[in-house]
Amino acid sequence: MKQRNETMVNSTGRSDLPGWVVELALPRPSIEDNTADADRLSRAMEQEFDVNRVDIDLAWRRRLPGLMRTSQFRIRCLIFKERQCAVLIHAAAGNDPAVMAGLAVDLGTTRVVMRLLNLETRQTLAEDAFDNPQVAIGPDVLARIHHAEEAEGPAKLQRLIIDGVNRHLEALCRSCSLVPEQIHLFCVAGNTAMSHLFAGLPVRWMIREPYIPAVNRFGLLRAADLGLCASESARVFIFPNVGSYFGGDLISGILATGMHRNSETAILVDVGTNAEVVLGNREWLMACAGAAGPALEGGMSRMGTAAAPGVIDRVRIDPVTRAIEVQTIDHLPPVGICGSGVIDLAAHLFLSGMVDIRGKFKPEACGEHLVEVNGVAHLTIVSEDASGSGEALRISQADVDSLMRSKAAMYTILETITGTMGLALEELETFYVAGTFGSLIDPRSAITIGMIPDLPMDRFRSMGNTSLAGAVAVLSRRDLTMEIDAIRDRITYLELNVNQEFMNRFSAAKFLPHTHKERFPSVGP
Amino acid sequence: MKQRNETMVNSTGRSDLPGWVVELALPRPSIEDNTADADRLSRAMEQEFDVNRVDIDLAWRRRLPGLMRTSQFRIRCLIFKERQCAVLIHAAAGNDPAVMAGLAVDLGTTRVVMRLLNLETRQTLAEDAFDNPQVAIGPDVLARIHHAEEAEGPAKLQRLIIDGVNRHLEALCRSCSLVPEQIHLFCVAGNTAMSHLFAGLPVRWMIREPYIPAVNRFGLLRAADLGLCASESARVFIFPNVGSYFGGDLISGILATGMHRNSETAILVDVGTNAEVVLGNREWLMACAGAAGPALEGGMSRMGTAAAPGVIDRVRIDPVTRAIEVQTIDHLPPVGICGSGVIDLAAHLFLSGMVDIRGKFKPEACGEHLVEVNGVAHLTIVSEDASGSGEALRISQADVDSLMRSKAAMYTILETITGTMGLALEELETFYVAGTFGSLIDPRSAITIGMIPDLPMDRFRSMGNTSLAGAVAVLSRRDLTMEIDAIRDRITYLELNVNQEFMNRFSAAKFLPHTHKERFPSVGP
Repeated sequence: MKQRNETMVNSTGRSDLPGWVVELALPRPSIEDNTADADRLSRAMEQEFDVNRVDIDLAWRRRLPGLMRTSQFRIRCLIFKERQCAVLIHAAAGNDPAVMAGLAVDLGTTRVVMRLLNLETRQTLAEDAFDNPQVAIGPDVLARIHHAEEAEGPAKLQRLIIDGVNRHLEALCRSCSLVPEQIHLFCVAGNTAMSHLFAGLPVRWMIREPYIPAVNRFGLLRAADLGLCASESARVFIFPNVGSYFGGDLISGILATGMHRNSETAILVDVGTNAEVVLGNREWLMACAGAAGPALEGGMSRMGTAAAPGVIDRVRIDPVTRAIEVQTIDHLPPVGICGSGVIDLAAHLFLSGMVDIRGKFKPEACGEHLVEVNGVAHLTIVSEDASGSGEALRISQADVDSLMRSKAAMYTILETITGTMGLALEELETFYVAGTFGSLIDPRSAITIGMIPDLPMDRFRSMGNTSLAGAVAVLSRRDLTMEIDAIRDRITYLELNVNQEFMNRFSAAKFLPHTHKERFPSVGP
Repeated sequence: MKQRNETMVNSTGRSDLPGWVVELALPRPSIEDNTADADRLSRAMEQEFDVNRVDIDLAWRRRLPGLMRTSQFRIRCLIFKERQCAVLIHAAAGNDPAVMAGLAVDLGTTRVVMRLLNLETRQTLAEDAFDNPQVAIGPDVLARIHHAEEAEGPAKLQRLIIDGVNRHLEALCRSCSLVPEQIHLFCVAGNTAMSHLFAGLPVRWMIREPYIPAVNRFGLLRAADLGLCASESARVFIFPNVGSYFGGDLISGILATGMHRNSETAILVDVGTNAEVVLGNREWLMACAGAAGPALEGGMSRMGTAAAPGVIDRVRIDPVTRAIEVQTIDHLPPVGICGSGVIDLAAHLFLSGMVDIRGKFKPEACGEHLVEVNGVAHLTIVSEDASGSGEALRISQADVDSLMRSKAAMYTILETITGTMGLALEELETFYVAGTFGSLIDPRSAITIGMIPDLPMDRFRSMGNTSLAGAVAVLSRRDLTMEIDAIRDRITYLELNVNQEFMNRFSAAKFLPHTHKERFPSVGP
């Protein structure tokens, strides 16, 4: 379950499939074959990339005649193909040893992850992550969109994220003895709002009915137009979005799983404050998203936190002694608990009989673990002595209630989307779990609390950061941009209609594991 | 013969064929039709222009959401289609009265002519001409190419022409109360070298075997990248060239005549220091060029000059009295003689028996007109008293010899290109004469000296500045860019092989009207 999926690029980082850097040996001009230099290269590009349109910018057309002759008409070109157009991004003499680098960016609302690649070998050169500097303006998408409605808002938000990327890409480059001018191609996957703010596009109509983004397809932008530190002709591919609520990060995720290529139906779940779900196969794709609340990302209480050193990510309760055993990231003394720890905890509290099927603490079973703090029942997970902070780590009944709502929302969304397509949850052949957080979840625990359906373990595949993986894949393989268009065009977005039926399903899912216990045959205390 | 051809755009300047400015009434977004703003416009553009690719730059994608809503989704767009791609150049609210202007440029080596158009009404707003400022670097193409080989040469040459265009377009705009920011589209027709220098492209390999230009198709460049004063998103269409020796000015000329659309075979002749000739019909086009010498452009002697006020452009000799009658431009006292005057003069000298069939002055017939200056025979055309300069205007035997070579070269080129296609000169249904100079020539005189074939007068059509006319047509009608590609792809360039056969023809053509007098049945003294 913890294995990173590597279908896109094999383990050496080198794919057998052609990439974006090609060495072209052009026929030398002669009286008989006297087409112009740029047109000579265009002809070769059209053949190599099977396109009917080639875009070579003026700066390159000025340089090509000299370069072609000093390199004996053997040139290494970085070319990107978008739809039926091949764009020359960079060219160098065939024997020029300079690395041509690309940067994959997972543009998260909270966290940004970047991976620097050698575009020729497809090897990872360096990787880095940092908090999205726009957090200073607002923690969530909505707050930032509201800020963007002020006069200088969009420019300021764009400046923040671009500066952040520039700062970290410089550090990345330094770490592997490159300079930013060697970055020629960016691939960026983010949700619709983050992608818009990155490109300096207006977002105000995204949050107003009928929720219209400025752009669905960003196409290939110029890095210089966005203020990115890179080579003069560097380009930026931003994953397209389907609408305001289905962003490029999810399209990148679908691409990373390959579910759009398979005949069997799979589901992809990106677990976070929003549960984003895609169901489908090579024939069709259906997507929806719904609020799952903050509980799953560990943001539910004072001690809840994102995954970080010293944070509890695994919990086990001895069914006999009811002793709570925790595991922390980097094995440091515990200072908090993240979402996967909370799911483990809830599962084990249920299995050990310490909560009832409504998720309520059972005082007789919890015993001395249960304390009252400010008149509210709390369960002690780590005592003062064992804690890294000197304070006991506790979870309140309200925290567990919050988790119950989140897990119920998640299950209801999964049930609704599969039901809409006339499928039963058991029919799902593969269950992809995406997102950094998702990859930490123990699916056994998630099943136990009824958050995800009771499928055999071998159907679950943890994909890690699929948004980044898809962006890396686009930098590595030249056949994927067509697939992105195909994915985008094939997606049907299901508006989750929170009607009486949805609420009935939600209520039924607010039990451990579920009102209909028969749906979870593998779960039992 | 003097009538300007107006097949491209009718006399009001308004064509019934669609132009580049369209008013698009976009469907308003709704929950059911919630595609993004830029994609909504793209969809409308794809339909209107029948393309599979749309290019809307980032600056416009930033502005569109606001513009679409303030204009109630009714916008006037300036769109240019190049091959299968429609590019949004400018957009305004449907009721915005600002003129969208375009500038057609005939980029001559010696002279630049510009016409400012209203792109919506297709009406001419203003026109101007000025000497190509690159003349300061070198009078001809070769001198400028040599200069461009110096380090700062290309930049300097580009700066000169761009500054010249900017200076004059500002004046043009002022003259009709516009500002340069209202110019959104340029269409430029020039020979290969002038087009390259305009775009700042290297030219050094154009003059070295195998004579390779940097670019054949320039595509749609950004005015800002060239330093042109215009709107921020303005684009520049430069006519493509076939090779170093067949430039966009000639493709523009072919377009202006429409010869590429007709079933009958026509010939287009641009008379100048180089004779440039295109032969063909809607099935095929064959082109060639050859040196004709300076005589035809009036640059052969001290008194020879380009057309200007006071310059003799028509000459008649009374067959009985042998009195020479001249007509000058603007009816001012004569100060020089231009090419058309020289051709008239030579024809009438022949018809009146004052020169023999080799073009040599016959002293007995010339009488007192003939004087010796510095030991060389000269014929007085205008006496000191009648001259505007106080000096007699005279033509030397060497000048007439020079004209004889030029006219023989022209005829030989025409004979060779038609012969290559297995045609006789008499089979030419239409004989287009292009160029400002060409339009001044009296075809009767040109036939009399055997410079052009002895066709019925109604087959000659004087086209004026076809290079400018083609550029104006491209700004006016949206169906021509495809035709330009078709013309370019259909042209076969005939290398004039100056072999024994060519030299034999040339020698035979060095008589008045020709060694084979039977080819000129209409000519007789």
